[in-house]
Amino acid sequence: MSAPDFPAWSALALARVEQALTDWVPAAAPARLGDAMRYAVLDGGKRLRPLLVLASAEAVQGNGSAALRAACAVELIHAYSLVHDDMPCMDNDVLRRGKPTVHVQYGEAQALLAGDALQALAFELLTPEGDAVPPAMQAALCGLLARAAGAAGMAGGQAIDLASVGRVLTEAELRAMHRLKTGALLQAAVRMGAACAAPALPVATRAALDDYGAAIGLAFQVVDDILDVTADSAQLGKTAGKDAAADKPTYVSLLGLAEAQALAARLHAQAHRALDASGLAQVALLRNLADRVVMREN
Amino acid sequence: MSAPDFPAWSALALARVEQALTDWVPAAAPARLGDAMRYAVLDGGKRLRPLLVLASAEAVQGNGSAALRAACAVELIHAYSLVHDDMPCMDNDVLRRGKPTVHVQYGEAQALLAGDALQALAFELLTPEGDAVPPAMQAALCGLLARAAGAAGMAGGQAIDLASVGRVLTEAELRAMHRLKTGALLQAAVRMGAACAAPALPVATRAALDDYGAAIGLAFQVVDDILDVTADSAQLGKTAGKDAAADKPTYVSLLGLAEAQALAARLHAQAHRALDASGLAQVALLRNLADRVVMREN
Repeated sequence: MSAPDFPAWSALALARVEQALTDWVPAAAPARLGDAMRYAVLDGGKRLRPLLVLASAEAVQGNGSAALRAACAVELIHAYSLVHDDMPCMDNDVLRRGKPTVHVQYGEAQALLAGDALQALAFELLTPEGDAVPPAMQAALCGLLARAAGAAGMAGGQAIDLASVGRVLTEAELRAMHRLKTGALLQAAVRMGAACAAPALPVATRAALDDYGAAIGLAFQVVDDILDVTADSAQLGKTAGKDAAADKPTYVSLLGLAEAQALAARLHAQAHRALDASGLAQVALLRNLADRVVMREN
Repeated sequence: MSAPDFPAWSALALARVEQALTDWVPAAAPARLGDAMRYAVLDGGKRLRPLLVLASAEAVQGNGSAALRAACAVELIHAYSLVHDDMPCMDNDVLRRGKPTVHVQYGEAQALLAGDALQALAFELLTPEGDAVPPAMQAALCGLLARAAGAAGMAGGQAIDLASVGRVLTEAELRAMHRLKTGALLQAAVRMGAACAAPALPVATRAALDDYGAAIGLAFQVVDDILDVTADSAQLGKTAGKDAAADKPTYVSLLGLAEAQALAARLHAQAHRALDASGLAQVALLRNLADRVVMREN
């Protein structure tokens, strides 16, 4: 098979994810809870994590049905984390993806519940009735997602972030925080795509994909910090400059802009090398996604 | 095997659950997140849901390792829901199980994150490495728990509850709310215990256990409403009379105390009849738990 055309693949993949999310995030949930959940998830976001799942699954010729569910599940975890992160007791942000945040639109209590329900829904999507996704694959996907979302992953990273406001972190501390806060879920996206392979992949291939996931996970955060100072709110679809304003440690505040940009470039190269080492033939999509993570403008 | 001695079984089961939760809720999670998680979970609560899982698993001679994990997982979901429910944007409660609530003790942001991380941890517990729990059983347990916790279960019930403050509900509406808000997770506890059977149970047995779970789930809430007016805060370990004070609809406000007590008695009898119909021989523990749900004083 020749290397797929990335823009065409990406457009099709995004359309499939959007349709699946529209089908699976329940409109009918009681007392406007469904409205708040759909508002939080649909029609917004770069969908980087779903694309990583799908590209990773294609690289290993994985189960397509499982991959689409995993793609949506990881996006639901990401979406719920944004809903809770934006709440007044956390970042108290009012703008997200160019729209009022969920708690502004639906109230704090509904935002809290919508986030909680989105997390549960992620695990529902991974455990469908019927035989489209083998039970062992369902269990593996649930395990990967739960570990990436929890105290040793995203939630733990957010706790470190909370505790770090106003403190001076070393680069090692900042890296540890982001490895959990954003890195764990990005890496899990790649792992979950790989877990759609049956039989399971060789250890060396999984390790190489893990290296790829770790590199782009960190690169994503470095670029985020760079954009926080180089882009404006309209471009970002969220409040620009807020990390600096909140006196939060960032790669830019720690390393300076030029050195942060150099770090992003090094991580980009690392991601490419990890793909070379994976032994997989069809890594063009993952390669393109690494490029997109580093070159993005929002 | 003769009918087990309930108090002895219950004491042993509670000790096992407490030890497992102590082992599995991570003390080492970053930035005091682990402290907040453990504070929310350990050393408190009636552990009714774990006992239901374990009793149900014993009735079907299920996998003991899976049952202990399921017992803890369902308790983590319950514990996280209390943490979030107590927050200022929800019930704004300061006392729980006789202690300051998590957000009072650790701050709102940490309470939010601890709840989120406890939900993720529930699914981690259900997906252990190694072969103690077959992958298909892991997947079934994750699926049951996710559906009970989400928009069509507990979170949905809480959304209805939020929307119902100050409104007059019919008994049917009140019942629908509680079937989701508390009933779904109690019923899931029974189902998850039953899902520890291999091979899977006959449909009629599962249906009877579902009837049992539904009856005690509703009875639990009716008794909760009764205790809210008949017990004091010290006895409850939480603020008594708060539903009435918040003008929340309850079975007592709707039916009056005597009729609410009669409803609890009818549901109690229904639960016993469902066990008779299950075709299972060892239902004494489940029978005792139904008694405890209705006769409890806190």
